[in-house]
Amino acid sequence: MVTVSLPDQSWLDAVGPVEGVTTLVWDPTQPPPEVELDVFVAPYMASPDKIEPIRQQPSVRLVQLLSAGVDAALPVVPDGVELANAHGVHDAATAELAVALVLASQRGFDEFAAAQAKGEWLPREFRPGLADKRVLVLGYGSVGSAIARRLAPFEVELTAVASRARDGDDFVDRIHGTDELLDLLPEHDIVISVLPGTAATKGMLGAETLAALPDGALVVNVGRGPALDTDAALAEAGRLRFALDVTDPEPLPADHPLWSAPGVIISPHVGGVTEAFRPRMVALLREQLRRLAAGEDPLHVVDRG
Amino acid sequence: MVTVSLPDQSWLDAVGPVEGVTTLVWDPTQPPPEVELDVFVAPYMASPDKIEPIRQQPSVRLVQLLSAGVDAALPVVPDGVELANAHGVHDAATAELAVALVLASQRGFDEFAAAQAKGEWLPREFRPGLADKRVLVLGYGSVGSAIARRLAPFEVELTAVASRARDGDDFVDRIHGTDELLDLLPEHDIVISVLPGTAATKGMLGAETLAALPDGALVVNVGRGPALDTDAALAEAGRLRFALDVTDPEPLPADHPLWSAPGVIISPHVGGVTEAFRPRMVALLREQLRRLAAGEDPLHVVDRG
Repeated sequence: MVTVSLPDQSWLDAVGPVEGVTTLVWDPTQPPPEVELDVFVAPYMASPDKIEPIRQQPSVRLVQLLSAGVDAALPVVPDGVELANAHGVHDAATAELAVALVLASQRGFDEFAAAQAKGEWLPREFRPGLADKRVLVLGYGSVGSAIARRLAPFEVELTAVASRARDGDDFVDRIHGTDELLDLLPEHDIVISVLPGTAATKGMLGAETLAALPDGALVVNVGRGPALDTDAALAEAGRLRFALDVTDPEPLPADHPLWSAPGVIISPHVGGVTEAFRPRMVALLREQLRRLAAGEDPLHVVDRG
Repeated sequence: MVTVSLPDQSWLDAVGPVEGVTTLVWDPTQPPPEVELDVFVAPYMASPDKIEPIRQQPSVRLVQLLSAGVDAALPVVPDGVELANAHGVHDAATAELAVALVLASQRGFDEFAAAQAKGEWLPREFRPGLADKRVLVLGYGSVGSAIARRLAPFEVELTAVASRARDGDDFVDRIHGTDELLDLLPEHDIVISVLPGTAATKGMLGAETLAALPDGALVVNVGRGPALDTDAALAEAGRLRFALDVTDPEPLPADHPLWSAPGVIISPHVGGVTEAFRPRMVALLREQLRRLAAGEDPLHVVDRG
C-alpha cells in the first residue's frame, strides 16, 4: 500500500478511492498523522512553512504540489525526496487570465470601470484592440503555448521566446532564445511574461528591456512578480501600459505607487484560481496515485539539478 | 466615372485613388457638393439626421455604411437607393470585445478594479473562469462565428442559435433556431447576444428567457441594446451577471440603476471601435469602388424586403 496525505477533507472526497492507495487528511499546520507517510500533497499555494513539516517525516518520498511554480517548495524539500508540480493543471486558467488582461488593457476596461463607478458613458474613442497586434510570449512552456493557442484566432502575429531557441509548434514557426529578446522587443506591441521565479529570470523585464518597447506597448505578467522590475515599470508607466497578475512585492502594500500608476491594471495573483482547477487537479492526483501504486515513476517530477 | 463622397479628409486619404472613381469629401452636416453624386459613404455611427441629406441628392444610387448595423439608416434611405453595410469589417473587434466582456466577468475584473482603486489586494477566491463553461452565441452570423472561432480554444462547449436552424460549421455541429432558445438556456453558463436591432429581436432576452438561465449565469450583449429587456435584467441582477456593450436606453443616463446593479459590467458601445477598423474598412471601400467602376454589383447590399 502507498499512503498519501491530502491537505483537507474536500480533496480526500474529490480524489476518492484509488486501488492500492490509502488516503488520509494532513493539514500541515496540525500534528502529523501517526502513520508511515509515502506521499505528501501540499496545500494550494502553500508557503514554505507549510511544507517544512515533512522534514520530520523521513518516510515521505514524494511531495506533490498543487501549483506549477515550485519556488516556495525548493528551499524546504530535502534532497532525496522527489518534488512533483501540477504541470498543465493551471494552463487553461492562467492562459485565459493572460488573454483577459491583454483584452482588458487593449480595450480600455480600466477606464470603463472608473466611468461606470461615476455613471459616466464615455465618448467613443478608438482604442488599440488586439487584432493586428504583434504579441511576444516570454517563457514559452506549457502555459505559454496555451496562451498562444488562445491568441491565435485573434488575428495577431505571435512570437515565442524561451530560455533556449528551438523549433516551433502549431502557433509559431520558431521559438527564439532569451538572448534574442532585446532585438525582438522593438517590433512588438504586447509582451506577455510567463517567466518562473528563478535567479535567471529576475528583472529580465527591467529598464533596458522595457526601454526597447515602442510607445504604447503593453506588458502583461502572469508568471512571477520579480521577472518585471517594479521600479523600471513605474518609470515607464504612462509611456507603456502594464497588466499584472503578479507583482514584486506581493501582495502589493496598500500605499504602493503601482496601484495608481497610469495605465496599470492589477489582479491579485489569481492565474490558476478558477473552477477549472479542481477537476484537472483531481485527474492528475488520481493518475499520480495509480502510478505510484503500480510501481511506476510519478509524473512531473521537478529536476532540481 | 463613378463619383463617391467620403465623410472626411482622413477617409479620402486612406482610400486613395481608385481607377474610374472620383472621390471627394462630404460631411453631411455641411452643404452638399455641387456634383452628381453616385455613392454616399455615411459617417461612422451616423444618426439618421446625418444620412437624411441624401434625400435631396437624387443621383445617389448607393449608401455605404461604415457599420454592420443598419437600424439608423433604414428609415431615411429612400426606396430605390441601395444600402450596403460594412459586413465583416467589425467582426474582429466586436468578437474580441465579446470575449473580453466574458473574461472580465468570469474572472472578476470588476471586483479587481474596485479593489485597485482602494489599493486593496483581494484574498484568493475561486471564480468561475471560462474553461469548461457552456456558452450559447445568440445571433449566429458573421460576428457570431468570429466569436465562436475565438472561444473555441478556451476549452468551452459552444452552442449557436440563429433565427432559423441550419447546418453547423467548424465550431458547432448544428445551428439551432431561436424557437429552441428557451429549452437550451437552462443548460448554459454564458449567453452572448449578437442580435441586431429589429422588431423580432426586441426583448428576446426578457423575464421569461432570463428566468430559464441557471444561477450565476452570465449574459453578454454586443449586438443591440433592446434585445435585452432592461427591467428584466435589473430584476435578475445579483442572481445573474451581465456584461453589456449596448444598453437600452443608450447612452445610459448618469442616474440609471444599471450602472450600479450587482454583477453588471458596462462598456460604452465600443464593439467596433479599435485600430482594427480602419484598415479593414479601407480594404472594403476600395473593393466596393473598384466593383462599381467596373460595373459589377456592390458587396453587402442589405435586403430591405
